[in-house]
Amino acid sequence: MNVEQAFGTVIKKYRLELSMSQEKLAFESGLDRTYISLLERGKRRPTINTLFFISQVLGIPPHHIIIDIEKLIQKK
Amino acid sequence: MNVEQAFGTVIKKYRLELSMSQEKLAFESGLDRTYISLLERGKRRPTINTLFFISQVLGIPPHHIIIDIEKLIQKK
Repeated sequence: MNVEQAFGTVIKKYRLELSMSQEKLAFESGLDRTYISLLERGKRRPTINTLFFISQVLGIPPHHIIIDIEKLIQKK
Repeated sequence: MNVEQAFGTVIKKYRLELSMSQEKLAFESGLDRTYISLLERGKRRPTINTLFFISQVLGIPPHHIIIDIEKLIQKK
């Protein structure tokens, strides 16, 4: 799994834990719903600014998301 | 201080601690020297992929760099 796929997996997990729609995540983070969908499918490489925007909406510290990504990409 | 300025500050700090040139960091991380210079001055918004590339060269876990950024942007 590459970095952008791991990012998508992690933010989708946290979004679903909050029962939050892609639309709400997009609106609250100032991003487009289509872009959120592409991110969750690992089809876009987010900037660290986008990481910080999305983290704030999800209520997860940005470094927690990065730790989750580190774990996912280390798996064989 | 915004996210990209904090990123630049943090990677420059770790690079200098290693007495590593921008040229060496650029070469080892597969990036352009000019791009490293722009990043360190907060003039570009890196992707999380770039964060992971640079972290590996600096020998710092990516989430450590994000923790440092979180601290810098929280300062008034």
